[in-house]
Amino acid sequence: MNDALPINPALASRGELTRERILDAAEQIFANKDFSAARLEDVAQAVGIKRASIVYYFSNKQELYDAVEGRLFAAMVEATEQRLNADAPALQQVLTVLDTWLDFMVKRPTAPRLILRDSANTYPNASASVRISGVALSTWESVIRAGQEKGELVDVEPMYLLHLLGAPAIYFAATSQLLGENRNFDPAEPEHLQAFRSMLHRSARAVLQP
Amino acid sequence: MNDALPINPALASRGELTRERILDAAEQIFANKDFSAARLEDVAQAVGIKRASIVYYFSNKQELYDAVEGRLFAAMVEATEQRLNADAPALQQVLTVLDTWLDFMVKRPTAPRLILRDSANTYPNASASVRISGVALSTWESVIRAGQEKGELVDVEPMYLLHLLGAPAIYFAATSQLLGENRNFDPAEPEHLQAFRSMLHRSARAVLQP
Repeated sequence: MNDALPINPALASRGELTRERILDAAEQIFANKDFSAARLEDVAQAVGIKRASIVYYFSNKQELYDAVEGRLFAAMVEATEQRLNADAPALQQVLTVLDTWLDFMVKRPTAPRLILRDSANTYPNASASVRISGVALSTWESVIRAGQEKGELVDVEPMYLLHLLGAPAIYFAATSQLLGENRNFDPAEPEHLQAFRSMLHRSARAVLQP
Repeated sequence: MNDALPINPALASRGELTRERILDAAEQIFANKDFSAARLEDVAQAVGIKRASIVYYFSNKQELYDAVEGRLFAAMVEATEQRLNADAPALQQVLTVLDTWLDFMVKRPTAPRLILRDSANTYPNASASVRISGVALSTWESVIRAGQEKGELVDVEPMYLLHLLGAPAIYFAATSQLLGENRNFDPAEPEHLQAFRSMLHRSARAVLQP
């Protein structure tokens, strides 16, 4: 005889739903406040549950933060892989990665701001810093290296190229409302997004072609 | 008869020295920790004075932070103006600005990390965000606009160009130790700095020329 209660599928999926709602609220709060100022209480209040209910899903703030980041990078990499065509010319593949990241970050402005906060941090050891973001770096690196091996892309450090071409997309998506009254613009407006994208492509072609 | 004590020049300069030492320590601490976690006590301890002595110079943490940022941007803009030659071709002037910023941030790694933290913030109103960093944006804007008026530079938003060309320098200087064990490098090493700089120039020429 088994004492365990049968799993109630409705409850299981309700649990998953609550977990997602906690992650949604936490993503906003971690993007808006620095890590030290963000409180589990605020997340609970935004979801409309008790703090103790969050702890049932995530045992502490760091664990919740890591889950937010993990979900974010997984979504970004998944969107990239859906659009990537491994048979396309290497330059085209890199432009696809950049376009996907740009679109992703403009549509989800919490993403570039969380990445900016992460980028300012220090970490106790070299592997800790990429524990979560590493999937995105690996995607970038493998597309660049494949193009380099075929002789289609310039033979320089993939990480230089990431700084040169990835950082602009982060800054465009995150900071276009921080430039001051007469300079601010909405990066999601098609006119701005298209104009910026074409400049980013211009830069990418110039730096990537051997 | 005047009751005020005569100013003792030795004491005045000792006061200025202490003020600078507080700013030096605070710059490190604000770069290493998020604003909420940084404590005046830590700054005092690093300088070897009492917390109350800091409050004599800066009445609270926000005021100290603003002074750190103000000093940083003033130094960056001063370095830029020293190297700028208003008679040079516009493209050359932009490359000079970029080189100065890149060298400044690589030599003073607290700078790009403070800028990253700032860039992730939200502000209560549009002018608050550029209250301090505005001097750097204005320098950039005036060099770009002057070149555009002479027809030497592409006619696009100066802020797009800032995202495209300024953000890479920030990321190169701040995050090259956050890429993971097999990717990390020292951005101050001449080999890396020179290779990155030449790629940045390549991008700048491609996006700036009409």
